[in-house]
Parts: sequence; structure tokens; C-alpha cells
Amino acid sequence: MQDMDRNAALSETGPGTPGGEFMRRYWQPVALSSEVTPGSKPKTVRILSEDLVLFRDDAGRPGLLGLHCSHRLTSLGYGRVEDGGIRCPFHGWLYDVHGHCLEQPAEPEGSTFAQRIQHRAYPCQELGGLIFAYLGPADRMPLLPRYETLVREDGTRKVDFYSINSNYLQNLEGAVDTVHFSYLHMDHWSQVKHKLAGLPKPEIDWEETDYGIWQKSNLPNVQYGIMNMVYTYFFFPAGFMRVQGSAAGGNDIKKFQSWYVPIDDEHTLRFQSAFAPLSTHSTPYEWPPDEEFIVPGPQNDYFRDYTRADTICGIPVNAPGTAIKGYLCQDSMVNETQGPIVDRSQEHFGVHDRVLAAMRLMMLKAIVDVQEGRDPKHIIRDPAENAIVYIRGNEALEAV
Amino acid sequence: MQDMDRNAALSETGPGTPGGEFMRRYWQPVALSSEVTPGSKPKTVRILSEDLVLFRDDAGRPGLLGLHCSHRLTSLGYGRVEDGGIRCPFHGWLYDVHGHCLEQPAEPEGSTFAQRIQHRAYPCQELGGLIFAYLGPADRMPLLPRYETLVREDGTRKVDFYSINSNYLQNLEGAVDTVHFSYLHMDHWSQVKHKLAGLPKPEIDWEETDYGIWQKSNLPNVQYGIMNMVYTYFFFPAGFMRVQGSAAGGNDIKKFQSWYVPIDDEHTLRFQSAFAPLSTHSTPYEWPPDEEFIVPGPQNDYFRDYTRADTICGIPVNAPGTAIKGYLCQDSMVNETQGPIVDRSQEHFGVHDRVLAAMRLMMLKAIVDVQEGRDPKHIIRDPAENAIVYIRGNEALEAV
Amino acid sequence: MQDMDRNAALSETGPGTPGGEFMRRYWQPVALSSEVTPGSKPKTVRILSEDLVLFRDDAGRPGLLGLHCSHRLTSLGYGRVEDGGIRCPFHGWLYDVHGHCLEQPAEPEGSTFAQRIQHRAYPCQELGGLIFAYLGPADRMPLLPRYETLVREDGTRKVDFYSINSNYLQNLEGAVDTVHFSYLHMDHWSQVKHKLAGLPKPEIDWEETDYGIWQKSNLPNVQYGIMNMVYTYFFFPAGFMRVQGSAAGGNDIKKFQSWYVPIDDEHTLRFQSAFAPLSTHSTPYEWPPDEEFIVPGPQNDYFRDYTRADTICGIPVNAPGTAIKGYLCQDSMVNETQGPIVDRSQEHFGVHDRVLAAMRLMMLKAIVDVQEGRDPKHIIRDPAENAIVYIRGNEALEAV
Repeated sequence: MQDMDRNAALSETGPGTPGGEFMRRYWQPVALSSEVTPGSKPKTVRILSEDLVLFRDDAGRPGLLGLHCSHRLTSLGYGRVEDGGIRCPFHGWLYDVHGHCLEQPAEPEGSTFAQRIQHRAYPCQELGGLIFAYLGPADRMPLLPRYETLVREDGTRKVDFYSINSNYLQNLEGAVDTVHFSYLHMDHWSQVKHKLAGLPKPEIDWEETDYGIWQKSNLPNVQYGIMNMVYTYFFFPAGFMRVQGSAAGGNDIKKFQSWYVPIDDEHTLRFQSAFAPLSTHSTPYEWPPDEEFIVPGPQNDYFRDYTRADTICGIPVNAPGTAIKGYLCQDSMVNETQGPIVDRSQEHFGVHDRVLAAMRLMMLKAIVDVQEGRDPKHIIRDPAENAIVYIRGNEALEAV
Repeated sequence: MQDMDRNAALSETGPGTPGGEFMRRYWQPVALSSEVTPGSKPKTVRILSEDLVLFRDDAGRPGLLGLHCSHRLTSLGYGRVEDGGIRCPFHGWLYDVHGHCLEQPAEPEGSTFAQRIQHRAYPCQELGGLIFAYLGPADRMPLLPRYETLVREDGTRKVDFYSINSNYLQNLEGAVDTVHFSYLHMDHWSQVKHKLAGLPKPEIDWEETDYGIWQKSNLPNVQYGIMNMVYTYFFFPAGFMRVQGSAAGGNDIKKFQSWYVPIDDEHTLRFQSAFAPLSTHSTPYEWPPDEEFIVPGPQNDYFRDYTRADTICGIPVNAPGTAIKGYLCQDSMVNETQGPIVDRSQEHFGVHDRVLAAMRLMMLKAIVDVQEGRDPKHIIRDPAENAIVYIRGNEALEAV
Repeated sequence: MQDMDRNAALSETGPGTPGGEFMRRYWQPVALSSEVTPGSKPKTVRILSEDLVLFRDDAGRPGLLGLHCSHRLTSLGYGRVEDGGIRCPFHGWLYDVHGHCLEQPAEPEGSTFAQRIQHRAYPCQELGGLIFAYLGPADRMPLLPRYETLVREDGTRKVDFYSINSNYLQNLEGAVDTVHFSYLHMDHWSQVKHKLAGLPKPEIDWEETDYGIWQKSNLPNVQYGIMNMVYTYFFFPAGFMRVQGSAAGGNDIKKFQSWYVPIDDEHTLRFQSAFAPLSTHSTPYEWPPDEEFIVPGPQNDYFRDYTRADTICGIPVNAPGTAIKGYLCQDSMVNETQGPIVDRSQEHFGVHDRVLAAMRLMMLKAIVDVQEGRDPKHIIRDPAENAIVYIRGNEALEAV
């Protein structure tokens, strides 16, 4: 551990890297279920720096295979989904979701060559509208956690994903760091900033849990002249959950669970499952319809309008394409402008950053666990424990 | 040979590389004759990872020089063709096609400096509408082969070129591999694929020749319910020839000869000389006029239309801009999506891939020949042998 | 010195490089004063391969800070200028122009953390409409030279800047090399080139001075059938000055002083201060208004029009967007097409290139001076000497 480059260990997740082996011990969301329908066009995806093709066979089973055909390496992303698998366009080799080669049309009659091909294939499972895959060693495969936001039926749900052009961890850290809410996301900044001094300072309670970190934040909100209380959670390996709403009153609660999935070391997919419990809405909450998502970035200056938007950064709180995504553009800006992979040796941690230090240490410990043959944190193998998995603490307000 | 990285040796053709030295023992096409006319704008070209400028002097001679002026390295591609050579825009140095410096306008009267400058220059020859250049050592320069498609007068000819964004060899291999024809290029796939099982399997005969490889393929064609017989040829160092038409009847024969010329290790120019012999056409075949060529690639998804084009890949058999180029978009897709330089260690060869294995071994042997001071295969030095060079075998049907 | 890679030493100016340490001993222009007004949007700049943010605080002081906040490395370029400094958008940390951290809104009452933060900050000074910064060691900071073109009040002035996509030095060399004027910049080339032989050859006098190099060039001008005499100057570390006009008559004199400031090793900003003395104009010279500057480059072929523009390169002498910038597109072309960093080992110097050889040797000597603890050339520490700094020689015509 002393000899480990900690920043590299936390940031790099390609095959064979310590962080990559760690991330490969968990089920990772790779697409929305709705993105591939039986027989529809396959989807080329890149996950943990591996090039893959995702498809749904004509029996409805999702498959995740190595992108390049085992024969001559042509992209199966340009293949056709049919006949119980996906067919390579070059010579018609057909693979099923297990990576078995079902056909090699040009090989001689009686050839057993196909049976000797085992194409790279990763198990997939679906839950709550997401397709999860497991890219790790078969003999260490855990259960796919049946998270509350994925399996509860007493409410309405919406799943979505967003692409991010920087390392997964700094974006996850930006979520776990709740303090920024009072500054980055504060609207009417010029009018309210002076009131901040009159409010109490942020108070962050947190503790390590079996899933990761439980965190309760009391944040000054100068627009309402009060402290806001918010529960947030980090869950292994790279997830974040936030409960939004008037927690005190128990009304209009929404739970947002996010998985930060590395595309590669400098690109990330954030999958989100949002759940609105019936009990806190007078009528079932209707999630707004999908709208085009414009990825914020340097190419559009993160929708900044310095003179007209009265926030510190000049990015409005609801930039174009983010009506239901809240502060997404502001968040992407603060996280991405740290660099494609932030150099953590240059940081200066304040008092509230202790939770980030703790999170990193927990992740590093989990990386060592994997290296030394142990299960890392939050691996679920007991079906009883997996009936429903809650990411929450023990306070009364959290039991919604 | 044992210590050689075979994939690198075959793929890399920059100056000083084993594969580069091999490729430099042959004349390579670098442009169409029609691209540079006397005194016209010079053309910047990159061949075998060398930056060069091609021009035609006012006497009509093609010249191929190092791109950067010997004086202060400004691009001669921005020079002017005049006064018996090409003039550098910076200080007016003038070079002829031999790389001799004819003028240095600012040097003092009586200076002999110009005579001491020998700018990099490669010999050029023209044949059949193509400009060929020789980039190798002067004392090993062979004859420019007078190929049938370039010199025959008993028919009509068309020359053309196409740019490809991947390594030359995998594109050449895609041509030599005739088996893919029955799968990649099969139209109405969903309707005809089940008939394939009822047809015989492909049969490939091939043998090594003095020019490279002779190959006769019998391929199942489910659209016509028969086997198609086709002659194809690999010729050194990186060429391919195909005879198209109803060979049995001897009617409407077209011969397509292609040279795969590395721009650099990840980009290729394919030059093509197409010839239609008079004897197989009732009237001289009229080649279709030039039309704009849109390079297929990820930027236009290789013109794929998954739901409407009934091929395995969903790329139509005649995508936009390829009316006379047949299956070009499909070919580029299968060859390029292997990666910029395919990693051949990941392949799994089927029975029909033996011809590719043989071709690679022949090329590796030729690379070693060059390293050890011998002429590689298909070097022609005898003018008698060069009166006309046929790339063909000894079967009666080939004598068209 | 023998072991030094001379081309690298001259070309590379990042932190810690020999050339970078040398360049950091001088004040460098980093922006026009008009680009940042009190409280206006900060400007992200890159200077000598360092990412920085430039702003002007509400008291009017320019500040140049490290781009990434000391806390969690978010870009201060997305911060807000207010309250005596610039505020990070993430958690509201506020920095003044000295890099002192004035506020950390979320830290607890009584925290002394802010006082222990010293953010990277470089001193700035303004003169003549330019903001200069000093990026070197504090104990070696010299005076900001009060150059004639920046401080004279007996005339009119205009400051401007141009971005260049290649190494600073080859662009500076293109300026110091006056000989190219008779070739690169010659209009109606086809009609006048034959007269060149009838004119005398260029004559270049030059000598080393305390600021760098004084140079007097007599250049053949075939359009007027005479020799043109022009004074030009190289001043340390990477500046160029040119006096334009009918020097003999002393009328309509304009002085152009340029600083070539590396953005990084392959990109450059050229700042220019142009001054027209009253004494040589019947009425105060009115500089043309600003117009859009389109950076010339491969993307627009440097505005080349080979068949219609009668210059060697086919770039017209006044390409779009360069009405007041003269030969800018032609200059950028000849300098940039040498490559992002020219490989000087491939050059062949003519007789007039001795001035470039001398300039490089002077720069290399200055680099060694810095390495060995001495002040390099043209460091001014005596205020008396700095009342006004002239870059000129001792000839009568220069005293304008």
C-alpha cells in the first residue's frame, strides 16, 4: 500500500489495474433496458476501458460481448442481431449472449472449430430499467443488489444516464461533497451572499456503514434564511444517493440513486434511478418526459452567461437541456475543470473534506482487499439480505 | 526473424523500419497523372510516413521532393511551380525534379552554395495515368512493372484512388480474403441466408507465384443459387487484382488492379487501374464519369441504415458516392473497425484464412530478404520480361 | 553547454526547462489592458505552459493566478471577480491578486486555514495598454522596461495581439530574417521577378547591442526598382522591433514593437505595440479601428488563392482580416509550415542567416547565464536607465 500510487489506484480502472480489478467485483450498469429491444441494432459501449457490444437477442436476453469478432477482429457493433445471437458482418460468425459461437457459415461441413471459440462475454441482468453487467472473475460474482430505487413498486420511477468527459471519481466526489450546494448552486448570488455570514456554518455528520458512507448535512441556505438538512449516501464501489424534498414534513420526497461508471479513465457514464414514493405525494408523481440532453463542456462554455446569470460561475441553475437535471451543468463544470484526471496531490482539504478523505481510504482499502483475495466492501452474497437493499441510515426521517 | 515483432514488421512502413525498407524497394503509385498539370499548384502528399511535395514542372516532368525546403524548412507545398522547378515562397530557392537547387536569389553573386544543396528527391515515372515514385536506395531501383492494366491498348481504362483511415495491410487482406463476398456483400440477407446451408461451402485454390499469390475461389452465391468462380491475385509488395465478370462466357470482363500505398501506418491510399478488354465487350466499355467520393467512416457511420438495408451490417451494397465502387463502404467498415492497426495476435484463423497466413509469411520472407541484401519477390530488372507484365495464372479462362 | 540539446533549450519554455527559466527572468505581456475591466469576466490564459487566470479586481488591480483553486482544483476561470478578488465557484474561496485567500465561507468560525493558503500568483504591471507579468523567482525580478513605444506621449499608439499555432522562436526568427521581404512578400511576382537579377543583392549589417541585435538591411525592391533600407531590432528575451516608412525623408514613420510570448511550446501570442511619432506626420496618425482577426492556418489554407494571387505562395499580400497587419498570413505560413517546432538540425544556412545564428548563440549564452546564477542580457535594474528605453542604434535616421 505504501508503494501504491494512490491517485492512479483510485482513478485508473482499465483491465489489470488495481482500481480496475476492484471495480470489476461489482455489477455495473451499462445501458438502459429501453436502449436495446429484441433484435434491434446493437450498441457499441465502452466500459472500464473495454470495447464491447451490447445487444438483446431475439429471445429478449441482453448480451455484452467483446467488440471485436474472434475471427478477424471486425466490430460486432456493425453486426446484425438475429438467429439467437449477433452475427459478424464480415463472414457471418454468430455468437450468443454467452460468447458461444453458434455458426461459422464458411467453414467446412463437420468442422468443430466453432465449438473451440469462446468469445469474451459478460453476464448481464436487468433491474428497474437498467442493464447491469459483471466484468469480473466468474468465481467471485456477487448478487446484483436489489436496491430500493430499482425494485420498489409503491411509487414511480425514472431511469436515465448522462455522459461526462472526465474521470469518474472526481465527479462522484463532487456529489459526496454536499457543502458546495450553498455556493456553487446558489442563485441570486450577488443579493444573498452577504447573508451567508449571518447563518451558521455547514455541519456535516457522517459515518462509515456497511454500504459505504452515511452523511447528514446541515447547509446554510441564504435564500430561505435557514439551514437545509439533507441526507446523502456513498455506496460501493462508486455510487451516490441523495434524498430530496422537505424531509421534515415528509412530503414530495424523491430519491436519486446514481452509479458513476467509468467509460475509460477520462470519461464517465452516470446512470441514475430516480424514485418518488407514493406515500409522500398526493398523486403518483409524474416524471417529466425525456428531452434532449446537451452534454455541457468547454465547447458550449457549460452554458455560462457571466453577466446575466447571477451565480458565482455565471452558469444558470437550470441551463438548457437540464430542466429536470437541476444543477448538472454547474456540477460538470466544477468537476471537469479540475482536469481530465485531477491531481489530488495539489489539493488543500478544508474541514468538511474529511468525508472525501475517508471515502478514498475506504476505496483504497477495498482495492487492497481485492489484491489480497478478500471480498471488498458491500459485496452481497446472501439472497435473504438481498430481498431489498436500502442505502440509508437509522434516523426516523430516512424511513420513507 | 524469431525476434522480429511480426505484426509491427508487416504494419509499419516509416523510414528505417523493416517493413518500410521492404516497401521502398518497389515503385509506388503516389497520384493520378491528371492531378498535376504543367505548372499547376503543387500537391502535398504523405507516402510511407514521409512528407513530400508532388508537382509537374513546366516541361511536364513530375517531381517528388521532400516537403520542407532545405534552407529553413518551410513547406514547398506552398511554393510556386515555375522556371524549371518549384520555388520556395520564403526566399525563392528553386528546385528541379532532381532536387538540384537552381536558384538562391538572395545569395551573393558568384556563390556556389546552391550547387552544394542536394534536396531530397525521388524518381517518378508515369504509366497508364498513374504517377509512380521510387523511394528506395538508388542502386537497388528496379524497373517499373508494365502491368497489363496500365499498358494494354485493346480496351478502355480508368484510374482512380480512394483514401482509407487504417493500416494498408488489413485492407489488402480484406481484398485477398474472397470468402467474405458471400456474407458481407450479400444483399437481401434476411431472405436468402437460409439457402446458404443448401449450397456447397466455399472452395479456395491458391498457390504461390513469382508475383505473389494466384487464387481461384468458388463461392456460394445464394441470390443466384449457384457457386461463383472468381480469380484474384496478390502481387508484391501490396497489390491486389480481381477479374470480374462472367468468366465462363468470357463476356463483359473487367480487370481491377489495386495498389495499397501507406500514407503512414494508420492511413492508406488505394490506387486502382481498371481495364475493360475490347474482346469481351460488343462496344468499347465506357467507364462511368467521376463523381464525388465521400470517404466512409465513423463520421457517417459508413452509411449504415440498420433497419432498411437488408445486409448483415445494414450498409447498402451501393452506398452514396460508391456507384462504381461496389462494396467499398462495407469493405472499409470491416477492415477499419479492426482498429487503426489490427492486433493479429487476437485472431482465430478459419480454414480459408490459410491464404492470409501464406501471404504474411511471404511478406515476412521478403522483409528478411531486404535486410539481408537480397532482392525481394517480384523485382523486375530484365526489360524483356517487362514488355508487358501479367498478373494471372495458366488457366484458359484467365487469358482474356 | 556541449551536452545541451540546443534546439530543445531554445524552443521549450515550460516550468523547469532551461529555456523556461530564462524566459521567466523577464516581464512578459499576457493581455491587453482593455481585455479585463474592473470586475469583468476573468480570462483564462496559458503562458509558458502554465495555466493561469487573469482578472482585474474591483479596485482596478490586474491579477494573474494559478488557474486551479488551491482547494479542490476547480478552474478559477469560471469564478466571479468581486469583493476584492476572484471567487472560486465551487465553495466560494476568495483570492486577491497576491494569491492570499481572503475568504473560505464554509470553514468554521475562527479557522486560520485561509491564512495558511498561498495560491500561486504572479506580479502584474501595466504600461502602454499592455498587462505584463513576471513569472520568475521573486528575488530576481527586474524593472519592467519602459520602452519608447509604450511610454512616449508625442504620437499615437495602438496595441494588439495575434495568436500563432507554432513555436515562438521560429516566428521571431521569421521577423529577424529581413531578407524574405523581397521574395515572400513581393506582389506581382510573375511580372517583376526577372528584374531581381538586375538589382543588387541584399546587404545586411548587424551587430550585437546591450538589448540584443541591431540590424540595417538594404533589400532589393523590384517593384520600385530600388533598394529599400530598413532598421530592425531583436531585443531580449524574444522581441522584435521594426521601423517602417520612408526613413530617408523622415516622414510617416511607424514603429512596431512585438513580443513573442509562448503559450506553450507549440503555440504563441504575439503582442504588438505600434507607435506613430507626431513629428513625422502632418496630423496625428489615426490607427485603423479593430477588425475581426481570423487566425490563418491549414484550416483556411492561409487564404491561399494559387491561380489568382500573384505571389510565390499564392497568398495575397493583404488577406482577409489582415488589412492593417500587412503580410501576416504569408509570415504565419512560412513559419508554421516548418512544423510545430522546427528541427533546426535540418537547416542549410545561407550568408544572410548569420544573424539568426548569432541570435541563437546569444540566447543560448543567456540561458547558461541563468543556469549559472547570472543575470541574462537586457535585465534592467537601474531606475535611471529605465526612464525611457530605446531599442535603436546610433545612426541619425534612427533618432525619430
